[in-house]
Amino acid sequence: VLDKVNLAEVLAGMSDHWMPRVVAAYNDDTVQVLKVKGEFVWHKHDGTDDLFIVLRGSICVQLRDGDVAVGPGELFVVPRGTEHCVRAEEEAEVLVIERLGDTGAEADARVLEAEAELRWSR
Amino acid sequence: VLDKVNLAEVLAGMSDHWMPRVVAAYNDDTVQVLKVKGEFVWHKHDGTDDLFIVLRGSICVQLRDGDVAVGPGELFVVPRGTEHCVRAEEEAEVLVIERLGDTGAEADARVLEAEAELRWSR
Repeated sequence: VLDKVNLAEVLAGMSDHWMPRVVAAYNDDTVQVLKVKGEFVWHKHDGTDDLFIVLRGSICVQLRDGDVAVGPGELFVVPRGTEHCVRAEEEAEVLVIERLGDTGAEADARVLEAEAELRWSR
Repeated sequence: VLDKVNLAEVLAGMSDHWMPRVVAAYNDDTVQVLKVKGEFVWHKHDGTDDLFIVLRGSICVQLRDGDVAVGPGELFVVPRGTEHCVRAEEEAEVLVIERLGDTGAEADARVLEAEAELRWSR
């Protein structure tokens, strides 16, 4: 029988910020959880939407057009090709679904590093 | 600026069981929330995994190999091609991500009806 994943339990064992842990595969995409605090880097994914569900705390998804505040139990999808930068004043916990390997050329080293990390932990 | 979705708010406006509401698109897939109670029907999707996150209550995902109890804050992915049948003793609230139109030939009218409903509400 296949395994379920308790998201809070996985997150309880994590401490670093911006270091996603892959918890499941869904079709060609990865389901990740991560703790965030502070600000990531502006980037976009040309080949995949980026789905966020906030599990604890709140995040601000900065878009070039404005900010979207996403709180616990809220879902937000960044469409492919849309530049975004996540910021969190206080630590927050987030579930993210995205297709790996579709990060746009504008991504800087930090995004690519996080992606490499994901491939490892897969 | 794009919209976020408050999952609990959407669910608060729903009352029927097994009637999914599409809350977002993610790549080629639909993100749905639904209230469940009782038992659905055995079916499988040959072309898509089926991702479940339980938001409230508990569900039992019956597989031919055994049952998986999935509680609040837990995630479970039914791999494509795997027969499954969700059951819930008490009402539960679930987020589901799946690709529409990939239901296997074995699906009965109830699954096809739910899919048709989804296309409408899209």
